[in-house]
Amino acid sequence: MKNNAIRIGLFGFGTVGEGLYEVLKKATSAHAEIVKICVRDRNKKRSLPAEIFTYEPEDIFTDPDINLVVELIDDADASYAIVHRSLEAGKAVVSGNKKMLAYHIEELIELQEKTGTALLYDASACGSIPVIRNLEEYYDNDLLLSVKGILNGSSNFILSKIFNENKGYDEALKEAQDLGFAESNPTFDVDGFDSLFKLIIITVHAFGTYVHPDDVINYGISNLGEADIRYAREKGTRIKLLADVSKISDDKITLCVLPCFVPPDKYIYSVEDEFNGVVIKGECYDKQFMFGRGAGGFPTGSSVLSDITARSHDYRYEYKKRNQYRKMEYTTDVDIKLYVRYRDEADTALFRFKEVTERYYSKDYSFVVGVISLADLVAIKDELPKRNIFIAKMY
Amino acid sequence: MKNNAIRIGLFGFGTVGEGLYEVLKKATSAHAEIVKICVRDRNKKRSLPAEIFTYEPEDIFTDPDINLVVELIDDADASYAIVHRSLEAGKAVVSGNKKMLAYHIEELIELQEKTGTALLYDASACGSIPVIRNLEEYYDNDLLLSVKGILNGSSNFILSKIFNENKGYDEALKEAQDLGFAESNPTFDVDGFDSLFKLIIITVHAFGTYVHPDDVINYGISNLGEADIRYAREKGTRIKLLADVSKISDDKITLCVLPCFVPPDKYIYSVEDEFNGVVIKGECYDKQFMFGRGAGGFPTGSSVLSDITARSHDYRYEYKKRNQYRKMEYTTDVDIKLYVRYRDEADTALFRFKEVTERYYSKDYSFVVGVISLADLVAIKDELPKRNIFIAKMY
Repeated sequence: MKNNAIRIGLFGFGTVGEGLYEVLKKATSAHAEIVKICVRDRNKKRSLPAEIFTYEPEDIFTDPDINLVVELIDDADASYAIVHRSLEAGKAVVSGNKKMLAYHIEELIELQEKTGTALLYDASACGSIPVIRNLEEYYDNDLLLSVKGILNGSSNFILSKIFNENKGYDEALKEAQDLGFAESNPTFDVDGFDSLFKLIIITVHAFGTYVHPDDVINYGISNLGEADIRYAREKGTRIKLLADVSKISDDKITLCVLPCFVPPDKYIYSVEDEFNGVVIKGECYDKQFMFGRGAGGFPTGSSVLSDITARSHDYRYEYKKRNQYRKMEYTTDVDIKLYVRYRDEADTALFRFKEVTERYYSKDYSFVVGVISLADLVAIKDELPKRNIFIAKMY
Repeated sequence: MKNNAIRIGLFGFGTVGEGLYEVLKKATSAHAEIVKICVRDRNKKRSLPAEIFTYEPEDIFTDPDINLVVELIDDADASYAIVHRSLEAGKAVVSGNKKMLAYHIEELIELQEKTGTALLYDASACGSIPVIRNLEEYYDNDLLLSVKGILNGSSNFILSKIFNENKGYDEALKEAQDLGFAESNPTFDVDGFDSLFKLIIITVHAFGTYVHPDDVINYGISNLGEADIRYAREKGTRIKLLADVSKISDDKITLCVLPCFVPPDKYIYSVEDEFNGVVIKGECYDKQFMFGRGAGGFPTGSSVLSDITARSHDYRYEYKKRNQYRKMEYTTDVDIKLYVRYRDEADTALFRFKEVTERYYSKDYSFVVGVISLADLVAIKDELPKRNIFIAKMY
């Protein structure tokens, strides 16, 4: 039984980094200590003595005393450089950067195999919910049917304020930012990018398949309006931003990140505020629901802590499904039922509905509900944010 | 990366055993096969060909072709004998018998260490929710504050029928039995023994402490009456059978299994029917909620499958908290607020209330609510089932 003392070189000292520092002080039995912190801004006032900080990344990579690199920085390119360099230098690394992972995970898996060094990132995928670890270790069989969830705390917080407290979108967004739930760029959260990147990572561990984020539809809530909220209420539903990877046949999976009209009998209907909720569905175990705090420095800090203590036991992801099971292929050849609210009739021409089931017209706004192929939706995904429309999936 | 083929010798072929057999047929990539099944009853009609069955346990222990023993039998003594023999014979073993584990886990941990063989039992603790594995691997630090939950599917099913469909206790119990949710002896479920045994196992992995089941209060729902349901409704609560292990100071934990008046703002309030729900609370990550199917052959079968595939990767519990962290001591020196409904005034003499906060008297029944030391409650625990009373904890 090993329990190596962990000496950490940390990159980034923002909300999560500071949260981690506090968490580590409390978790004395973790035998983990931050010995050096690399930051960029020399002028920023810091809460720790100057000696612990460095501005030179190599100070960390070349320090023989440091056996774990933890990187908690926003910039995906810089994050990639750190993780890559770290693995090459033979140092295990913990990362919380979902964007970086969503784009580079394939290469980083191979680099881990080549160097024999480990990269852990449970913290990246769902705040404090141990989704990756559970998919990797517990649902490590081919009975999995789907993983669906609310993966972004800030957009869910905004939706809760809108639905439960009748606040406007802008007011709700501001409140999320004031509380520190929204990340540096709100687009990342509210337009579904954060959820998308997490879904890409989850899919690797759920079905062994890497899907490029650019190939998946992601649409967020920044265009949500009064009419959409009214429509949701009339149908007895709430709008939630859902990320979904589902098996649709023996060798095919499909992915999407879309606002969704969720009926009250679904677990995720009750996931409110900054919380995340994930439903794991399997052939025999029916449904598992995991629920926890998805945003904020402490919860994320404590999930980084789990990655850190896992390293003290030499834990590494084995990518079991990727390496051992039948490869599942990503497809968009699947129909979904979509709601499109618009003002300008020309905007609906964008959507190749196979069948229309509902139509409403008024001077102020109109909407159409119909069946559309996911492939057709992916094809126009870059066009969607430019239009004065809102789209959402019928559950 | 290892993925050894698993050849299973199975003990017991009841609901869960048959469920497992079906699950394994579907989970083809698990590379696990049941090669021999040891059963007791020679006359029972079986759904599989006779060749696979044996009546002689040694046929399994001495078969060099079998590398994993799975035991899914009700009888705790027989289960103990199998697990003990199996570890001594150097064969890893998966067990689902919570009673056996609750009484023998200390010795079996030592036997694992001595023989270098592994015993896994995630299936024992919470149906399909991966509680043990998460406590062991993910919450493997000293930030944990409490683990609380609805751990018994059948009693929760009964409570749901009573509260949501206004059924009587007997009617609800019969329905649970008809649906196969109640185990062979209903006392085990409805009087809180099943929850207690699971709590003992969870406590070992949550806080590293073994507490003898006889030292912990467990009281169930079999005496629940109209008046109690009315009282719960008046307070806007639901009665749930809750198992709870909580840290109360730096080196002390306390345990109890009691019906509890749960207010609507608690996650477990919404755990209905045969489902289980567990709330894991920590110093930094606040609350995690896990939810899943707790009773029935398939869900349990699939969690046994997770134990089996874990063995194909040579997984074993490391009992990290037991071996590496500061030992937490069990105490009953803690006050709780208790509701006692009674008819005979003499029965209340049993309870040494430190303070009474509510009292009601009528010809038909009376109740008292007050503060009592858990130690005093444990002292009278064997007396409680003999009286015409019902007790429940205020949340």
